[in-house]
Amino acid sequence: MVDFTAEGEAPDVEDSGVFLEQLSRTIGELQGLEMKSAWIKLPIAKAGLAAVASEEGFQFHHAKGDYAVLYKWLRPGEEDKVPPFATHQVGCAGFVLNKKGEILVVKEFHGTERVRKPARQWKLPGGMLDLGESFGEAATREVFEETGVRTNFSSVLCFWHRHGLTWGKSDLYVVTRLEAETEEINVDPTEISECRWMPLQEFVETQDHPLILTTLANLWGVRKGEAFPENLEIVPQQELKEVSVQWPGRPGYPTYYPTPGS
Amino acid sequence: MVDFTAEGEAPDVEDSGVFLEQLSRTIGELQGLEMKSAWIKLPIAKAGLAAVASEEGFQFHHAKGDYAVLYKWLRPGEEDKVPPFATHQVGCAGFVLNKKGEILVVKEFHGTERVRKPARQWKLPGGMLDLGESFGEAATREVFEETGVRTNFSSVLCFWHRHGLTWGKSDLYVVTRLEAETEEINVDPTEISECRWMPLQEFVETQDHPLILTTLANLWGVRKGEAFPENLEIVPQQELKEVSVQWPGRPGYPTYYPTPGS
Repeated sequence: MVDFTAEGEAPDVEDSGVFLEQLSRTIGELQGLEMKSAWIKLPIAKAGLAAVASEEGFQFHHAKGDYAVLYKWLRPGEEDKVPPFATHQVGCAGFVLNKKGEILVVKEFHGTERVRKPARQWKLPGGMLDLGESFGEAATREVFEETGVRTNFSSVLCFWHRHGLTWGKSDLYVVTRLEAETEEINVDPTEISECRWMPLQEFVETQDHPLILTTLANLWGVRKGEAFPENLEIVPQQELKEVSVQWPGRPGYPTYYPTPGS
Repeated sequence: MVDFTAEGEAPDVEDSGVFLEQLSRTIGELQGLEMKSAWIKLPIAKAGLAAVASEEGFQFHHAKGDYAVLYKWLRPGEEDKVPPFATHQVGCAGFVLNKKGEILVVKEFHGTERVRKPARQWKLPGGMLDLGESFGEAATREVFEETGVRTNFSSVLCFWHRHGLTWGKSDLYVVTRLEAETEEINVDPTEISECRWMPLQEFVETQDHPLILTTLANLWGVRKGEAFPENLEIVPQQELKEVSVQWPGRPGYPTYYPTPGS
């Protein structure tokens, strides 16, 4: 990759001739080495060079903040095998069941602040992972930010795979089981219109959230219209436990394995 | 979002005064509506306007192919809450165990074509999800492309969550269990140096791939140096089955729940 973001590296946009010469020389060298693709990184202040490079067959690979990365596939007869920058966003929710058999649920605000109105639907608190966060870190952070309830991560219960969201991306939405350390509710008033501990039986009989209901049916055996268990366990029948897996001598990464609920 | 990619919409880069006037008017209108952010979409041929917009506080949100999207956070005193374009790439592998108790494994090529050499390590066939693919679709496609073996999707076995990969992204790597429909091997010679059906006992005694070994230990109870089960089941003790979950009247999305192996 030719990195033009280092100071003094990029020619001025007005000097597109100099830039094109440099591009052409680099492409020739890479083709001589039988490389498959050529890459350039541009600072936003020189973004005009992207237009110049596009005339030479370059396209955007990705961009963020103050830079853009472009590439050109160097084998016209072969399929372009450059992986896309990213196809997925990843979110997680906190499933918090307290010892009284109540589940922590929220109603979000829809719309903008001026014309916002509470959602009709109760749902689990949660949100998107920050870069580098584990599911446990993200879920406990989001639940605390939205509801004021402090929790500890226990397990992953299930995950949902959806397509066609914002910008055409796909979405992975992971439901984590968290244990409540505190129960006092203190909502984020900009995001959440209401928050409460709802008895699970009330939830099952009055709500129609398909993901939460399917989770309760699959993992607790609790179904709308069926006899409700007297002493419902906080722990589900099955869940995914975190195991640290990595090559010897390197730091481990969390890996999630299905196990019987403990 | 002001979309400048429609034909005739974007001013010429030379007319940056016209562009700045339009930006400034739009920002004023959005602030009047108490909106939090302003967005513009530019065609690559007019990428120079990104440099102009950056002087007004815009930054890249993302870019792909022939366009870039930029935004400006309109509330200087408040935290920028615009979600990043995407934080994750998603890959999947096929765990294929045949009725003889052999596992399908490959060695990839490392390096470029000129200086490529076979990897030392046997691993599972697999690759990254194409946009819109389910895990079953991606895993069966990748296994067929790499090894020539046709398979059917059965379940998800586990998933791995890693950070700090290419471009600073995170990675979710999902191991799927596939059933072999054919067993004849026919490798993709550009990606795979070797492919074979390896008896599971040989794998466990001779290999050190931590993810595959941890999967065998957790889901089949098979561990290096311990007595090997005589009649090993193809099916693991636990796995994640696909359930379709969605709001009533809308198409379902695959959701993965842990269940005892069937």
